[in-house]
Order: sequence, then structure tokens, then C-alpha cells
Amino acid sequence: MEIGFSKQLETAINEIAKLPGIGKRTALRLALHILKMETHNVALLTESITALKEKICYCQKCHNISDTDICEICGNPKRNQLIICVVQDVRDVVAIENTNQFNGVYHVLGGVIAPMDGIGPQQLNLANLFNRVQNGNIAEVILALPATVDGDTTNFYIYKNIQAHVPIVTTIARGIGIGEELEYTDEVTLGRSILTRTDFDKNYIKRN
Amino acid sequence: MEIGFSKQLETAINEIAKLPGIGKRTALRLALHILKMETHNVALLTESITALKEKICYCQKCHNISDTDICEICGNPKRNQLIICVVQDVRDVVAIENTNQFNGVYHVLGGVIAPMDGIGPQQLNLANLFNRVQNGNIAEVILALPATVDGDTTNFYIYKNIQAHVPIVTTIARGIGIGEELEYTDEVTLGRSILTRTDFDKNYIKRN
Repeated sequence: MEIGFSKQLETAINEIAKLPGIGKRTALRLALHILKMETHNVALLTESITALKEKICYCQKCHNISDTDICEICGNPKRNQLIICVVQDVRDVVAIENTNQFNGVYHVLGGVIAPMDGIGPQQLNLANLFNRVQNGNIAEVILALPATVDGDTTNFYIYKNIQAHVPIVTTIARGIGIGEELEYTDEVTLGRSILTRTDFDKNYIKRN
Repeated sequence: MEIGFSKQLETAINEIAKLPGIGKRTALRLALHILKMETHNVALLTESITALKEKICYCQKCHNISDTDICEICGNPKRNQLIICVVQDVRDVVAIENTNQFNGVYHVLGGVIAPMDGIGPQQLNLANLFNRVQNGNIAEVILALPATVDGDTTNFYIYKNIQAHVPIVTTIARGIGIGEELEYTDEVTLGRSILTRTDFDKNYIKRN
């Protein structure tokens, strides 16, 4: 987008439009909004962005985002440090935390094994996971990876490498979503939900 | 959104989510993207945002966004300074500039008269417009306001105040959009497009 009348506006639009999912039109709308914001609020915004880059690091234990060397979850004595939930991304940690249904700790892989995209086990935080499991006296590893071919590949790869060292390895349940109609559920999911049917009680009583 | 494990991330998400049209989920996605960006590119982004606020002003003549006291359009001797196009917002200037069909200058009102929202003529850059028209020997004023009730009200208000001082006052054409089917055009637009039908030649030959 060329803004003939203001180089500053053009620069801002181009920088904002580099963010994912933001086109030039949205960038223009955001830039014009920022122009009308109070200086003090614009400073809060830019400072928080700079702080992201300068102050945030990754937890040395679980690779989650953290303000300190060991994240608040790994450092929290109230959380069960013997149950590790393996996820693809920090966003999944946020999603699971929001359910309030998990009191263990996490391990963030940073992706899944995807040979087509050139992502092998070496590109992921897998060595540290195997290390944690072999040396940590872990009680259970929950695999919470996406229900895709790449997710399944990664599940199998992890399972093969840890099964000798941990008594329980589980994956999160796959089945029809709460509130979903059977009629509109795809065949593979429906078929799988019959094969992995659950004891009546378990679906209604919270498992601790 | 509560991010228990990183105050910095939570702050950034909350600040980003204050921007219009950006929810907490999108803010999280953007924050995680920024985390992965190179420091140097993050600096370019934050500097361009700060510059918006610090370096951009409004043109003293047309109230468009500008890097200088008089914007590049008002200061450009190649543009016809005797034709003023009245628009609601800076975004409309960008949209019209992108068509490459207008070589005059602009006047940005900063909104339209909207009694329901408490916006009267005094809240808009109207006095300066009337001043420009009365003292500027203007040849034509083009009203390019939205085709809404408020836009029409503003059109009439401006027309009443300038008709004695300018030989030609026009509004941009209203009719069916290029590529649109008559069948799907609303009745009011279609009816108006018949009433304001245009000489055959004019719709195919560029008007200069």
C-alpha cells in the first residue's frame, strides 16, 4: 500500500502488516487507531512488545514461555511434578490451563515430527523430554498432540522411547465433542469413539 | 486471559487485545509470533508505532494525516488545488488515492453529522471547509461521503453553506457496482440508478 501523503504512516502500515493474519487494510485501521490513542497508552503497548523480546525466556525444564529460568508451573510445589503433559506449542499450554482440569506439568515440543516439512526429532525438544522421563521417576506421561498424521507419528516415536521408563503413557481422549450431534461427526472420529468407548461413570465423574 | 506462567506475556496480550478487532486469542498468536521475530524487526515495529504518535500531525489545510504542517497533496503544484473532495475519514483519502482517478485536493471532515451519536457540525472540520470555499476561488466541491442517512444529512448541510460560493457541487455517483448483477442489487440503489442514469459515453470514457 502506497500512502503518498505520509511516509511515517506507510512505514507503520508495512511493519504492522508483517504480523501474521494482518493485511494492509487492517494495518491501516490499526495505525489510524493508534494515532488516536493517548501517548501514554501507545507507550504501554510498545513497551509490552519490547519486553516480550527482552525479558521472556524459555523454561529450562519444560520449554514453556517464562519470565524466569524455571517457569512458574515447573517451580510450583502445588503442582504434581510427576505427571508430564506433552504438547506441541505454548498455545496448547494456555488452552489446557484454561480448562482448570490439569494439575501436572508440561513439556513443550515446539512442533511435531513432520518429514514433509523437514522437521525431524532433532528439531524438537525431545532429547530433554527423554532425559526428564529417564531421570525423574515420572508416574505418567500424557500425550496431548494434535489428532493428525504428524501428531500420531510423534506419539508413536515418543511412546517407543519412553515406554521402558514410565509406568503409564496416555493420550488425550478422541471422540465426539461435547454438544456435538453424532449425525454430523465424521466417520473416522465416530468409529474411533466406539472402539475406545469409556466406562459410563468415567464420563460423568471427574477423574483426579 | 490469565497466563499464570508469564506476567510479561499476559501484559503484552492485554495491551495488544485493546486494539480494535483483535481478541485475546489473536493477541496471543501475535505475541508468540513477536517472540520468534528477530530483535531488530521487533524494534522496527515498535519504533514505527511510536513514530506514528510522535511525528505525524494533521495538515492545517485539509486535516489529512501528514508528516509536515501542509500535507504532500495540498503542497503538490501538480494537483488541481481548485477541486476539493470532501471525505469522512483518512481511510477514504487512501481509498480514493488508490483509484488514481482524482487529481484534486481533499478535505477530511473527521466524521459525519450524527445527531443520535451527539455529533453536530461543530465537532467536525466544517468551519475550515467553508473558509476554504469562500476564500479560495474553488471551481468544484465533490462530496464523497457515505451513502447513509447521516452522510446525506451532512451533504445537505454542506451544500446549503457553500452553494453561493462555488459554481459546481457534485456527489460521487451512486448506482450498481461494477461486476454486480441487477438481480441482487437492493431496490433503493437500483431505483436511484435509473433516476440518475448517465449518458452512455460517460460510463465508458474516462472523465478528466
